[in-house]
Amino acid sequence: MRVGIIGLGLIGGSMAIDLRRRGFADETVGFDADSVNAAAAERIGIVDRLADYESCISLSDVIVLAVPAGTAAELLPGVLDRIACSDSGREKVVIDVCSTKSVLAECAGRHRMRRRYVATHPMAGTEYSGPWAAMSGLFDGHACIMCDPWKSSSDAVELVEELYSVLGMRLLKMDSSGHDMHAAYVSHISHLTSFALALTVLDKEKDEKNIFDLASGGFSSTVRLAKSSPDMWTPILMQNRENLLEAVDTYMERMGMFREAIADGDAESVRKLMSEANRIRKIIK
Amino acid sequence: MRVGIIGLGLIGGSMAIDLRRRGFADETVGFDADSVNAAAAERIGIVDRLADYESCISLSDVIVLAVPAGTAAELLPGVLDRIACSDSGREKVVIDVCSTKSVLAECAGRHRMRRRYVATHPMAGTEYSGPWAAMSGLFDGHACIMCDPWKSSSDAVELVEELYSVLGMRLLKMDSSGHDMHAAYVSHISHLTSFALALTVLDKEKDEKNIFDLASGGFSSTVRLAKSSPDMWTPILMQNRENLLEAVDTYMERMGMFREAIADGDAESVRKLMSEANRIRKIIK
Repeated sequence: MRVGIIGLGLIGGSMAIDLRRRGFADETVGFDADSVNAAAAERIGIVDRLADYESCISLSDVIVLAVPAGTAAELLPGVLDRIACSDSGREKVVIDVCSTKSVLAECAGRHRMRRRYVATHPMAGTEYSGPWAAMSGLFDGHACIMCDPWKSSSDAVELVEELYSVLGMRLLKMDSSGHDMHAAYVSHISHLTSFALALTVLDKEKDEKNIFDLASGGFSSTVRLAKSSPDMWTPILMQNRENLLEAVDTYMERMGMFREAIADGDAESVRKLMSEANRIRKIIK
Repeated sequence: MRVGIIGLGLIGGSMAIDLRRRGFADETVGFDADSVNAAAAERIGIVDRLADYESCISLSDVIVLAVPAGTAAELLPGVLDRIACSDSGREKVVIDVCSTKSVLAECAGRHRMRRRYVATHPMAGTEYSGPWAAMSGLFDGHACIMCDPWKSSSDAVELVEELYSVLGMRLLKMDSSGHDMHAAYVSHISHLTSFALALTVLDKEKDEKNIFDLASGGFSSTVRLAKSSPDMWTPILMQNRENLLEAVDTYMERMGMFREAIADGDAESVRKLMSEANRIRKIIK
């Protein structure tokens, strides 16, 4: 089977590496609109070969759209148009790997090739981006959410199930709007809190050497996501705006409760809030 | 040299292990007011032997006060009283390892044994607590802040410098109030943001299985500090109240800027805020 990867960054690149290495793909072809990324991906050996955008679609049995969420929304209808024009189009499968799903679900909408598209969100990554951040094993053991699988052909769903099984992912199925709500709480909001934390310390500690010298391991892990790519995260936050604003409001309310208790010298309330938060110990390893 | 550790949790226990293993201490004696902690520390072999509180002080050349910040403030004057009563008191050295320093600096105040006390903050730890969380190598490569060393005898300072060098720490010196200001920004605030994040997701995701199934690696690292001990963190936040409130206000302002830009659909401002936050890439590994 030939797998075409559009977007050779962290996610697309890591998929290309393991789909080939683990035998799901006999050949991988890749395209990246950024010429530096494309050249680096070829040099590193992330894909077997580069192709232009059209060829990457026409040559491949499975097309992975591994681009930022805004770009994916722009490209998806065109990709589906293209496979409709091909004789082999009815067997091709298109997947995306975006962190937001409702906007893409609308884009695919009532396209006559809708059933060849499978919406997925492999929930794995690092704070780094670009082909040089791609790595084998990135997805192992993590969850992948497949959205609205009933809108896709069953053979397409089965192929994508196999693809993620090869990548070592646990597959969960839900509808797009449920996905976006959960994603706001267990992923998107934590990026915002991290970005805001970085801005806070950068604002206060004018001498960056102090941050470098003094930052604790705890601080580093909490601020890690603030290294994430604005190109990737801007469209995610904008597309998931409503869920995210609700999450931000709950978050600011909780932070406000801490602030008030600390300002009041109310140690008991501070302790109680922390004890309640400690429940996360039993859930997150 | 005999080192006495009062408080056999993560920090005290980890110090006991490496000070003995690496030859700084010929013998370690330990005390913990919590009988389960004390018995576990003995069973695990964290100290050579347990002693009662008085003996732990009288028998030791160096006394490490490794208890929560509130308890340390209560105990410190009494520890200094006790070494004053002993013939060998003028050679003993007392250190604390708390994350806040101004309150302790006041407690030591003008005590006649003030010069035998050295205020330190080894900036290392994990989100776990208790003697079972203690480990060799916890401090290696991290920073340790020594506060107001000019208020301590130079022989005491030298001994403590050697102690932290044995633990593999980089020693920095500053005054207590500077320490507390920096600590608010590079450590304390990140605990608060993490606790608030845990409360947010626990509030929204009533079915904890969803958190377990869906939480991304990024979420896990951002919420990790919410597992921290309320016993340890309540007194830290209360003692460093003023600096912390300032940090919280800056933080909420930054989060508010994100909220406003997202609500307005202003992608350019969201991207700009994130790009600014990305500066942390160059500072934090």
